[in-house]
Amino acid sequence: MADLLIKCMAVLTMDSEGDIINHGEIAVRDNLIYHVGPSGSTPADFKPERVLDYPRMVAMPGLVNCHTHAAMTLFRGYADDLPLMQWLNDKIWPLEALLIPEDIFQGTLLCCAEMIRGGTTTLADMYVEMDQVARAVDEAGLRAVLCRGMIGAGPDGESALAESVEFIQKWHCSAGGRITTMLGPHAPYTCPPVYLKQVIAAAKEMGVGIHIHLAETVDEVKEISDQYGKTPVALMEEVGLFELPVLAAHCVHLSDTDIDILARRQVGIAHNPQSNMKLASGVAPVSRLLHSGALVGLGTDGAASNNNVDMLEEMRTAALLQKLHTCDTSVLPAYQALHMATAGGARALGMQEQIGRLVSGLKADIILLDMHQPHLYPLFDIYAQIVYAAASSDVHTVLVDGRVVMENRRILTLDEDVVMAEAQRCADALVQRSNS
Amino acid sequence: MADLLIKCMAVLTMDSEGDIINHGEIAVRDNLIYHVGPSGSTPADFKPERVLDYPRMVAMPGLVNCHTHAAMTLFRGYADDLPLMQWLNDKIWPLEALLIPEDIFQGTLLCCAEMIRGGTTTLADMYVEMDQVARAVDEAGLRAVLCRGMIGAGPDGESALAESVEFIQKWHCSAGGRITTMLGPHAPYTCPPVYLKQVIAAAKEMGVGIHIHLAETVDEVKEISDQYGKTPVALMEEVGLFELPVLAAHCVHLSDTDIDILARRQVGIAHNPQSNMKLASGVAPVSRLLHSGALVGLGTDGAASNNNVDMLEEMRTAALLQKLHTCDTSVLPAYQALHMATAGGARALGMQEQIGRLVSGLKADIILLDMHQPHLYPLFDIYAQIVYAAASSDVHTVLVDGRVVMENRRILTLDEDVVMAEAQRCADALVQRSNS
Repeated sequence: MADLLIKCMAVLTMDSEGDIINHGEIAVRDNLIYHVGPSGSTPADFKPERVLDYPRMVAMPGLVNCHTHAAMTLFRGYADDLPLMQWLNDKIWPLEALLIPEDIFQGTLLCCAEMIRGGTTTLADMYVEMDQVARAVDEAGLRAVLCRGMIGAGPDGESALAESVEFIQKWHCSAGGRITTMLGPHAPYTCPPVYLKQVIAAAKEMGVGIHIHLAETVDEVKEISDQYGKTPVALMEEVGLFELPVLAAHCVHLSDTDIDILARRQVGIAHNPQSNMKLASGVAPVSRLLHSGALVGLGTDGAASNNNVDMLEEMRTAALLQKLHTCDTSVLPAYQALHMATAGGARALGMQEQIGRLVSGLKADIILLDMHQPHLYPLFDIYAQIVYAAASSDVHTVLVDGRVVMENRRILTLDEDVVMAEAQRCADALVQRSNS
Repeated sequence: MADLLIKCMAVLTMDSEGDIINHGEIAVRDNLIYHVGPSGSTPADFKPERVLDYPRMVAMPGLVNCHTHAAMTLFRGYADDLPLMQWLNDKIWPLEALLIPEDIFQGTLLCCAEMIRGGTTTLADMYVEMDQVARAVDEAGLRAVLCRGMIGAGPDGESALAESVEFIQKWHCSAGGRITTMLGPHAPYTCPPVYLKQVIAAAKEMGVGIHIHLAETVDEVKEISDQYGKTPVALMEEVGLFELPVLAAHCVHLSDTDIDILARRQVGIAHNPQSNMKLASGVAPVSRLLHSGALVGLGTDGAASNNNVDMLEEMRTAALLQKLHTCDTSVLPAYQALHMATAGGARALGMQEQIGRLVSGLKADIILLDMHQPHLYPLFDIYAQIVYAAASSDVHTVLVDGRVVMENRRILTLDEDVVMAEAQRCADALVQRSNS
């Protein structure tokens, strides 16, 4: 790719608090950040073929969505405001059972379009028909950590694991390194210890990590406690899951000991505040987790329980919710919330040496926010402005792996009109199948 | 003004649930809605001079922001994440003491620009230097219910009331009826009963209502209970406040009796979920209030405690927060949240016969949302789509009082570049004064 120079109002490196380069510039060579510094600091031997000169914009690392089910955008608004079990039993699961591969592809593509428009450059996704998800991510130009969700308790546990292994063999480190993979045992209550041990053995053999739902609801904690006499987190510790790199979604209901385990084992945690609110799951003790040294990233969960994949909004909700929950206006301050959505999320995925910060040598996953908007004036504090006031629509330009995938709010990798029309067509056909 | 016809994908009248007119049209004559119905249903004698034909858009009533301090956009991001009293004592109050009239004008103008861009057409505002606020609202072309905030406990109580009376005499029903006024005793803990009785007498004499902060924090409830042996709501009932039309902001900490009083007295309640979260105030029992028949609208509060005035986001937060708070995913469903932000808010302001619904005879305060966006596909349920997935940036066109104030995201009443620059200039000068 052509050497590219980005010049802007400020660069938020997210390498440490206050590391803001006013009138900064970022040199991009191939898929990497070659240099970051004040205007004019790029070595003279760097001759950019293109300069993106945006004096009213802020550059920051692309957002990292640590937990989602991208294809579920197809269910957006299909069934809301229902009691949880009715929603799952009568609406979501019957529809999921009717999904065909093309639905997964088109739903994921739609989600990728929305993510690019909102500044997300990396997603950690768990779903089925992962070949389709990988194809869509590749086409959109995003970076992703993908896994096939596995229900170990049912009859399909074995085949799901076999499919997962095949998926990993086919897609791990593909798309020029943009796609990596994990194993995705769904949750402690759907994957008994004997199954998890098989999964752990396979993960060790293939050198991949684990993506799992953990301690999401009170019911889960009760069920596991009744069955095993310990919390879900303690059970996972005992089973040996945390000997691997683990990405644990939700982690809402935690004992003090659970928090210690998660911090000590450096488990990556995906906090999904809007999903936890919409599904009335509870509030994750994010502030205590961070204080204990746990690795917390941020996720949107799927669009059936959110209903968008807007990471700027998720960040804001995380910060506001934690203040409310702790009765302390000073917890989860703006920088920390922004960190969770960038460098912290990268760390939760074990990708801190590749993404999440704007420093030389890392992948060029960069977004530009247009600060010249009424809701972003006056400007006192860039972190606070982005976390507490900015919107997805302020994302102007997005680079992933050194490639410009959106510029001036036009996605360059996808035809958005086609993506929207195809998603609607798939959704309509799906509902028609479910009614017939 | 010219007769205008709006044609669109759907009209949400918000007159009752499910009242959605697919392929609808709205005829606007002067400042009123002349006709609403399906395509082609407008009487033949209506000859529009202009047709806004937007087949991918949804028309709905302009959003009603029931509680804000518009000029405080000037403090956006100035001081966040601090303990509450430190934030007020060391940051907000010292800065407020240095405000000059021009700051109020420019700050309000900035807020109006943001509101228009986010689809708000009516605001209920409480601040100082209200002549400036009224001028800005008039210039922006918005509708507003304005009051001068009065601290009765201090030495300025008398002069504040005199100023308020003068303001009401000058501005009530001005700007072609777009501006109305109220009296604004700040709160029970800053306005003792003797002062409130003066305010009540003045309000009765002038025929205006009351805008007050009520039961916002645990501290307020404790202070009033310690001093008067009753809750703030019961004290206001005793003082006679509820003999007038009242708009009460926050109403977070309520006893069962308080809820009964507020419902029986048909007090307008402005629910401000994001401010309540950011200031760690608590969660208002909105679902119980609505169940009791109370009149609940939605507000953003000022931008110092939010930090935007984004009503679509506020609506979503209200719905999600109430589900979390009650552990019930079915409470505050999408229609009810949207109703709170439109017809419900109008009712809370006592303006239900003027705004909040799209029915003939009401003021033509109309917004068009562009549904052709990746985050708004596929479309199953318009209410859910707007409440759970839409963003301010989806607002394409805004009419207030029959006048197009924004079209295709360009504000026609204000020069946004000038507004932003002036707000930054005022904010910088203000901070400079505070440092010298």
